[in-house]
Parts: sequence; C-alpha cells; structure tokens
Amino acid sequence: MGLEHQEHNTLKLKKLGVDFRNEHLVFMRRDCHVCKSEGFEALNRIRVSKEGKTLVASLIVMDDPSQLRDGEVGLSDGAIEWLSATEGDKITLSHMAPLYSMSDVRKKIYGNALEPAAFTRIVQDIAASNLSNIQLSAFLTACVGDRLNGDEVIALTKAMIDVGFRLEWGQSEVFDKHSIGGLPGNRTTPIVVAIVAAAGLTIPKTSSRAITSPAGTADTMETITNVNLSVEQMKNVINQEGGCLVWGGSVQLSPADDIMIRVERALDIDSEGQLIASVLSKKAAAGSTHVVIDIPVGPTAKVRSEEAAKLLSKNIIAVGRAIGLNVATVITDGRQPIGRGIGPALEALDVLSVLQNTVTAPKDLRQKAILLAGKLLEMGEKASVGQGEALAADILDSGKAWEKFQRICIAQGGLKIPETGLYRQIIKADKSGTIMAIDNRKIAKIAKLAGAPDAATAGIYLSASLGLRVNKGQDLFEIFAESPGELAYALEYLKANADIIKIEAS
Amino acid sequence: MGLEHQEHNTLKLKKLGVDFRNEHLVFMRRDCHVCKSEGFEALNRIRVSKEGKTLVASLIVMDDPSQLRDGEVGLSDGAIEWLSATEGDKITLSHMAPLYSMSDVRKKIYGNALEPAAFTRIVQDIAASNLSNIQLSAFLTACVGDRLNGDEVIALTKAMIDVGFRLEWGQSEVFDKHSIGGLPGNRTTPIVVAIVAAAGLTIPKTSSRAITSPAGTADTMETITNVNLSVEQMKNVINQEGGCLVWGGSVQLSPADDIMIRVERALDIDSEGQLIASVLSKKAAAGSTHVVIDIPVGPTAKVRSEEAAKLLSKNIIAVGRAIGLNVATVITDGRQPIGRGIGPALEALDVLSVLQNTVTAPKDLRQKAILLAGKLLEMGEKASVGQGEALAADILDSGKAWEKFQRICIAQGGLKIPETGLYRQIIKADKSGTIMAIDNRKIAKIAKLAGAPDAATAGIYLSASLGLRVNKGQDLFEIFAESPGELAYALEYLKANADIIKIEAS
Repeated sequence: MGLEHQEHNTLKLKKLGVDFRNEHLVFMRRDCHVCKSEGFEALNRIRVSKEGKTLVASLIVMDDPSQLRDGEVGLSDGAIEWLSATEGDKITLSHMAPLYSMSDVRKKIYGNALEPAAFTRIVQDIAASNLSNIQLSAFLTACVGDRLNGDEVIALTKAMIDVGFRLEWGQSEVFDKHSIGGLPGNRTTPIVVAIVAAAGLTIPKTSSRAITSPAGTADTMETITNVNLSVEQMKNVINQEGGCLVWGGSVQLSPADDIMIRVERALDIDSEGQLIASVLSKKAAAGSTHVVIDIPVGPTAKVRSEEAAKLLSKNIIAVGRAIGLNVATVITDGRQPIGRGIGPALEALDVLSVLQNTVTAPKDLRQKAILLAGKLLEMGEKASVGQGEALAADILDSGKAWEKFQRICIAQGGLKIPETGLYRQIIKADKSGTIMAIDNRKIAKIAKLAGAPDAATAGIYLSASLGLRVNKGQDLFEIFAESPGELAYALEYLKANADIIKIEAS
Repeated sequence: MGLEHQEHNTLKLKKLGVDFRNEHLVFMRRDCHVCKSEGFEALNRIRVSKEGKTLVASLIVMDDPSQLRDGEVGLSDGAIEWLSATEGDKITLSHMAPLYSMSDVRKKIYGNALEPAAFTRIVQDIAASNLSNIQLSAFLTACVGDRLNGDEVIALTKAMIDVGFRLEWGQSEVFDKHSIGGLPGNRTTPIVVAIVAAAGLTIPKTSSRAITSPAGTADTMETITNVNLSVEQMKNVINQEGGCLVWGGSVQLSPADDIMIRVERALDIDSEGQLIASVLSKKAAAGSTHVVIDIPVGPTAKVRSEEAAKLLSKNIIAVGRAIGLNVATVITDGRQPIGRGIGPALEALDVLSVLQNTVTAPKDLRQKAILLAGKLLEMGEKASVGQGEALAADILDSGKAWEKFQRICIAQGGLKIPETGLYRQIIKADKSGTIMAIDNRKIAKIAKLAGAPDAATAGIYLSASLGLRVNKGQDLFEIFAESPGELAYALEYLKANADIIKIEAS
C-alpha cells in the first residue's frame, strides 16, 4: 500500500509567514481530505515530507477557509526552510511512526539509568526535530541535578558529538576555553582568544548564545563583528589569524544541543549532566584537543561551594578523558559579576577597553582573562608552568592582543563599536556604607527583564563592587533597555527585590 | 505610567480560525508597533487582555502582511472564547509579570519538597493557563514516581479542589467510584451507577476522558448519550434519577487537572501523586462523601504488584482522610482486559450487553461491576457487610439496573446505540495452544494507533482471554478504525510486536 497510500496524502504548500522558532508547525483545514482520511487532530505530531526530506510538525487545525484553500497546507517558516520548499510544492503528510526514543525518555523520567544506545536514539530524534517541546521539556527535566550518572553523561556527550558535524583543523594541538555560566559579565573569552592566538596557538573558538544568562559570548561578539560564519569561512580566518570567535550553532556543531538550549532557557534550568555534555560535545566537535574550563564559585553563582566545584571539575575531567580531550579546570571567585557591563553590548564595551588597555578597563576582567590565557599558554608549552600569566600580561600590555583581536574581527567581516540601550535609569544607594554582597542571579534577572540578550544593547552597567564604600545617593548601577516596556518591567522587579546589592552602614 | 502605557498596547482582534487546544496563541506582525515597543519575540509569553479578562499566550510572529493588517492581532480560538471576544475588539498586550510559581516548579525539578502555598501558586497558574506546555511538562515530569511526599500530595489535592468549582447535592451521603486505569476495557462505571442508583443511593458520577488509555468513561458514555451537562442540568438528572454519568470537565470541577491531563497524555506518563490528587480532588469537588476505588494489579496493568497496590491503597486512604472523604479500596485482578471491547464505542456495547443481560455479555465485566456496586451498597447501608454483591446481582438480573440506566440517559438528552469503525482487520492465532498472557499496554497501544479515543468507533474487540485454548487460524481479536491510515499504523505496530498475545503450544 506504500506508494498509493502516499499519493492520497499530498497537499500544495501555501506560505503563511508564521514563525514559532524551534517547533515546526503544520496548518491544515479541518475539512481537508488528508485530515479526514488520516484522522489527524489538533496537536497531533505529523510527518511532513517533500522529495525525501522529512520533518515532524505539530498540527494546527484551521477553521477559517479564507486562510487555506481546498488542497492547501501551511507550514511554519522554519519547516519550509528545512524542506527547501517553495509555494505550490507538493507536500506529503502522514502519521508519525511510534517514537521509540520516547520509551527511553519515559524510563529516564521514572529515574532509571539509560544505556548508550538510548541516548543515541533520543539525541538523534532531538536533532531531527522529532520531539515536541513538551517531550523535550520532560527529557531535560528528567536529567537535572544528579539524575544522570557518570556513564550516562559520557553516553549523552558521545551521542551529541556523533549527531553533529565535527571540525578538523589539520593541527595536532587545538586550544579552547569555556566558562561555566552563572556569573554576569565575565566576558573573558574574546580577550583570551586574542592573547592565545597572538602567542601563536590555534584557537578556533565557537561559542553558544545565552541559556539562562543575559548574554553568551556569541551574543556579545555579535555586537562587534559577524559571528555567523560557515565552516569554510571559519577555516579561512583560522589559517590567517590562528583564532576566531564565532557562534557554534551556525556551523551545526551540536544541533541537538542548540534545540535543547532553547527549551532550557524557557524553563530557566541547567542540569549538571546536560551542562557537561553540552560543553564537552561542542569542544570535541569543534576539533579541540586542549581545553581550560573556568568554574566560578559563589553564593549566587551557578556553583555555590568549593566542594561542588571540585566535584564538577572531577566529573568534567573524567568525561573529557573518556572522549579523548585534555581538560584543565580553574576554580575562580564567583561572588560578584566580573567586569562592569552585563548584556551583550555592555560586555563588549568592557572587552574592548581591556584589549585597548584604557585606564577605565575593569581590572577584575583583565586579571581573570590573564589567568585563563596563562593556563592555555602553559598547556601549549608557550610558557613553562607558573610563567603563563606573565606572558599573557605581556601580550596584552604590548598591544599585540588588541592588534590580533582587530585582525580576527576584520577577517570575520568587520569591526564595529557597539551601542547602548536608549531607555536608561540610574539606580542609587539608599544609604551610606560598605557593599557586602551582590546577588548575581537578581542582577542577571534585571538585565534579562530589560531585554538582554535578545535586545543586544540592553542590560546593566555596574558601578558597585564588593567592599566598595558608597555614600547615600551614589550611583550603584544603570539599567539600559531598547523599549520603555522592558525598562518598566526591570524597574518593577527591582522595586520588589531591594536586596540585590547589600550595603552595611559602617 | 500604568494606564497610558496600556493604551499604547492595544490592537484590533482579527479571527484567524486557529485551534491549538490547550496552549493559547497570539499572532502579531513582526513590524507591529506593539511588538517593537514592548520588545516581543517569537515564543515569548504575552499577557493578553480585554476588559478585565486576562490570559497568557505564546507569541507567533507573522512575516506575511496578508494575514494581519497593520493594527491587527490574531488569537487562537480558545483564547477568543476565554476572553469572550469578537472580531474588531480592542485587545491589550503586555509583558507577563514574572511567574512566581515557576520558582516553585524549579524547586520541585531539583527534587525539593514544596510547601502547600507553592502548590496553590502552581495550580492557580495552571488553571489560569499561565504556564506554557513546556513549563507544564517540566512540572509533571518533576512529580512522577515517588517524587511527591504524602504532605505534598495532600497539598496538591487541596489546591486542585480550591481552584475549581465544588458541587453540593443537599444530601448527607453522596457515593462515587473510580478505577485506577491501566486496564483496557474495564468499563464498570456505567453498570455500577445504574445498580447503585436503582438501589436508591445518590451517585452523581463525573468522569474524565482517557489520559493514556484508549477510552475513559466520559469517552464511552458519549457514544451512548450526551455527557456535556451543565451543573444545573446535572442536578436535575440527580433529583430525578439519583444517578448520572457526565464528563467532569464540562462542569469545571478541576480545571487545572484537565489541563495537566492533556500534557500527561502527550507524554504518556502518570505519576502516583498526580494520580491521587487528580482522582480525589475530582471526588471532593463533585461533592462525594463515600468513594470506592478499584486498583487492578497485573504485570502489564498500571499497578504491577500486590505490594505496590497496598501502598497505593494506603496513600489514597490517607489523602482521603486528610480531605474528609470516606474511601474504600478494592484490589482486583488486572492480568488482562476486562470485557471484550476496547475503545469508546466498543466498550459501550459491552456495557449495554451486561445491563441487558444478553447471553453474550462478558462475564468478567459483569462480575467486577457487581463487586464494586456491592461495596458501595454496603457503605450506604443498603446491604449488610458481605451481602452487597448478592443485592447488586439481584438488581442487575431483575432488569432494574437497565431500566435505571435508560432513564438516566434519557434525562441526560437521549439514548443511542453506538456504531463500530468502518475499517476492520481480524487477527488470527498463528499456532494452536493455550493463551498464557495478554499485554494490556500493547493492546491499548494498538487501539490508540487505530484512533481511540478521539475516533470513538475505533479500537479492538477481543475474542482471546487467559487460559483459553485456541486452534491455529482462530480469531484472537479484531481491529476497528475510522480511517485506512489509522488502521495501517495499528497493523504496522502489530507486525513489530508479535508478542501481544502469548500462546503456548500444548
């Protein structure tokens, strides 16, 4: 019945101009012959294909005949792109075969450990967009905290590497860095890449966008240069400069990870196992051999205690070893934001001032970049152990890092100076005293309510830092937004959360 | 800024005729002034209001100007209904205030026990449709298995009762029954209600639709009579007949539960805590005082072992006591389906044959209905302890139950005889021998692939039963579907799962 069955299930594509991001949608008339003969109902997951290309979409049933004519089907823009379809194309619609990976997901939901083959099935289905947002959300929730054991994290990491594209650089040693999030600002990566590449090491840096933070390195670099490079373009930049700073998603290094990250963002959760798999799968897929990983620790950082940091470090190194990566970790001070800007453009301005050695450059950001770059210079034997930081500082002070950074940006498509949000509000100290605590999570929340990272010029510029003595009425920070509505929501949250910066009268 | 801010955020409603079931959708043009000034992006959760009525919807951004004109906004049909809006109405759109209940959900995701107030916040937000499907899925996943403790189940149950409507019958004793699902067929409820009401007890039965099974009592009764009764209509039927059989959702007994059930269905999961809260909140909200709960046990039933059944029974009785319900449980044989039909209409035909005492009436279904009705007759002191079943059998045999059933159906709007699906396939034994096992889950899966419960006349009619000796080529069961596509998918699954009915050569 195969072919004959298929021919009865075709409709002509009509473009509706609808965008739902990660979930594909298919629109059919309630009275459509395919709906009727196949017994389709709203929210069903439908197999949609065109000449061999196939995807799974959620059905939206349309009652109003003016939107679709008889014999027509609508698809969301992402689905049309995925199928390389154009208006009028013949689209075949059928029931989805049972998803075997959902049996695996259910096992995990009930707390059972999964075999490597199960992770392969799940990750393949995620990468193929076969799982709906509801199903993805359940899988991610089932994996939070310590619900994945060591072997499961290794299996998940390998599955995520296998499902994506793997880069090769024709070099025996390829360097990389990563910071476990949770600390607003902390935009060391562009500085580290500039120093390390200036020293002659190969560092083809791919970065993700923000998950639950107000900015990721890709979001920040996008305000300075083009980060959407093809693999070929990236190779050209690396051949020329030894370093680059691009968005990992644009080279499809870990397509499953990009899809999971969007749902994690909607839930505002991170899981340790997913975190390790996400970070290390991207490093391996990027063709890296030596990676330094920064683990900031603080009461409101992602990692709260020295012990938790040590355990995470151990797990990262173990998974790294299992997949053939040479990983070093650095546990750092995460009690407050690093740098002054929080949000893509505001962090970019900090990065530029450190690279340019301006007098206002945030010292904490500079010091931390030197620490991480120093470690990589030691791993790459450009400096002997204990001498990496001195060499890194030297490269930064001499202007060689700034020169390298500019060359990288120009090779990626140009260098621009980012702007800041039009709608602003300065927040002042309500009493005199010493700043005793800064809540990273609430600072990040305000920057996000102000619009970051989607609104690139939104965020916070901090004047406050731990131990600083302030007078009543002195500026603590400024909020930037791209719309009055977003500024209002940030201020509303601030009103209800007066404890973001704790000042003790002295 | 409140009012002025709001007035800039209005658009005129355009009907698009779109149906996405439980998640409200709002459609805006990418270049719309509200999108721009508020910084809205695809998948954002947006607050949508009209004259005091408010809901939260997920944003779909439209690129094609032909769908919406400047100044227009589209809403899914459910949202339009919820707001009691009509085309051309002024709709106000704004950022959603931070959802405090999502902090509670995240706590639960990470395995922490929640306070009663947290469940109240979560359940209120669910009932108000403030949680997206992604967020709902995470909450439900976080509550599966034994991840809710006893106090949490009580708190969840109370929160679910409080958020809904509570019925009152002006009677000191109101009876009810419930069966923990997992067993295909097993449609005892209509028979029990007919017997108990015929005996003079008050049994205003509200039932849910199927969660993960091929049919719920509401789905089955809908093939015989009208089950969508208003509270007033329900009271009239009860005053007249003492019993009724209606869909609980149509009287808004537990609006949060109905929303959760749809997402549980998409995930194909049930959690014990959610199960108890769902069942008992509906019983309490329905105004019941005495409830008998059937717990079938079998290797492929929802409850797998006698021990698990005893634990569940203990937990149900404890939560019942905490909310003031008199609950009795009955642990029954769940090794195979009860009755011969599986699917709404096919189960309805079984129910009718038991009530009419036809010679082909399934004996197991009759026996089980008598057991449960007997227990209720004892609780209601219509029979002394140990004499309930004899009285129940007597009421059934005398035709009084059938007479009562017909009167109830007529009072609800009429009685019709259900049909069966047009597309059929008989499945035969591939060898001679004795039937040793029947996989409830796989039988249910086939009925669901064939279209049940959405396709009411689809499902399975079983000839096989445990211990039956069959010859090669003898009928085991027949599959019914409403479309050839659905029949094909059921058969495809059957081909890959030949172990559904285990025959041992003898």
